[in-house]
Amino acid sequence: MTVHPFDEAITLEAGEPGWVRGQTHAEWANMVGPFGGVTAAALVRAIQTHPERIGEPVALTVNFAAPVVDGTFDIAVKVVRTNRTNQHWLVELWQDGALRTNATAVFGHRRDTWSDTERPPVTAPEPDTITPTGLPDMVVWARNYEMRYVEGAIPGPGAQPQQSSTTTMWARDRLTRGLDFASLTAMSDIFYPRVFLRRGAPSPAGTISLTTYFHADGAELDAAGGDYVLCRAYANRFARGYFDQSGEIWSRSGALLATTHQLVYFKD
Amino acid sequence: MTVHPFDEAITLEAGEPGWVRGQTHAEWANMVGPFGGVTAAALVRAIQTHPERIGEPVALTVNFAAPVVDGTFDIAVKVVRTNRTNQHWLVELWQDGALRTNATAVFGHRRDTWSDTERPPVTAPEPDTITPTGLPDMVVWARNYEMRYVEGAIPGPGAQPQQSSTTTMWARDRLTRGLDFASLTAMSDIFYPRVFLRRGAPSPAGTISLTTYFHADGAELDAAGGDYVLCRAYANRFARGYFDQSGEIWSRSGALLATTHQLVYFKD
Repeated sequence: MTVHPFDEAITLEAGEPGWVRGQTHAEWANMVGPFGGVTAAALVRAIQTHPERIGEPVALTVNFAAPVVDGTFDIAVKVVRTNRTNQHWLVELWQDGALRTNATAVFGHRRDTWSDTERPPVTAPEPDTITPTGLPDMVVWARNYEMRYVEGAIPGPGAQPQQSSTTTMWARDRLTRGLDFASLTAMSDIFYPRVFLRRGAPSPAGTISLTTYFHADGAELDAAGGDYVLCRAYANRFARGYFDQSGEIWSRSGALLATTHQLVYFKD
Repeated sequence: MTVHPFDEAITLEAGEPGWVRGQTHAEWANMVGPFGGVTAAALVRAIQTHPERIGEPVALTVNFAAPVVDGTFDIAVKVVRTNRTNQHWLVELWQDGALRTNATAVFGHRRDTWSDTERPPVTAPEPDTITPTGLPDMVVWARNYEMRYVEGAIPGPGAQPQQSSTTTMWARDRLTRGLDFASLTAMSDIFYPRVFLRRGAPSPAGTISLTTYFHADGAELDAAGGDYVLCRAYANRFARGYFDQSGEIWSRSGALLATTHQLVYFKD
């Protein structure tokens, strides 16, 4: 049986009580260390497989405190509070005696209530009408995704600064692995830094803190399957070395699966 | 000398090493326990007064794990990573042997870079042309603010469900206390739950997780002073007991001081 590279990358084995151990995966490398999205996904997986876990992911904040280096890593998973319908988690990724990434998460039971999607739907041409491009080949992790940019592809040689930082794209797992909470977590970090678009070229930038709100339940993710999702991201303010970007991930059938926000440092 | 009630509410005294102690304040009470915004502000203050702190608040996520009860509380403040230009914090508020609120924060040095505000400015009539209303008197903490609603005031008796969850309002400290990072943190939780507007009436709802990105530096906050800020919030999706809301806080002179997001549970 072939294991999908994403599942390989977030495979965790039991460690000391309260700890699990994983390993970075060559196919999910970023410029330095692993893709932040796959690290975030491993943290979610660490909670999901914890014996005390109740419910599904509802909110997640991941702080990228220090670069994760290639090799093994240890994740401390701690439930800090269990309520009747939700549960709060603290998760830390350590390597070589140093905290590299930490996260808080809320898991919860979902129940039927009045529901509505107020965010206006993103419209885009069908994915098959758009050439798949992706990110430059040196961004190894991005090869795991098929990305078809409707607007705001990463600037290439000779690109000019843009007035808008908005990217809209169809994306799917290249091997059409079915969507789940771990892979949706990873996709919430699929957007390259918005400052690239505004400045017309890549420049040093990195996510400091990533927050994702999961609107879909497991059944809705199952229904989305391995099909394209429609992703949009934009920035709000760039100021004195930091900017924020907000994103949304829609299923092909029009369900808002997640909203996501991040704070990014940049130099220029 | 009269101390402003906000400063009273976030006054912390030294405790055991790594701990500070505070006390809930009657004027900042919510329906149950204190206003979440003032709790978040106390956590920020706890970091700000820590001897190892560098820089200014950049990103904050506060998780409301359990109700804070009236009385004293103890805050554990821990720096988990200090980098050259930023610093990661873990903060926990405890009462009676139980964790009530936890938070992660990123503080950082700011430096001059290319800057731009991409978020379209919010336009509104001058505050003096709008009647101050606020929130119902039973919401004690809200009496500390003057709130002038441009749209989306809290639904009163006989209100109907609305198609939009957007609230736009001018707000300022009633005693025109000057803005700082702690008070901006508190104001990032000034929006009542968006589900009230959509359903046409208040209903059980509470913030689970609150993330705020601080775009302004200290000088920009000083410049905003005690004048009105223009606040806007809206929801993206309501589904199965949870919804998210996003907000923005602008200075009267048009600077985007903060963007803020929260995940809220609701019943209906």
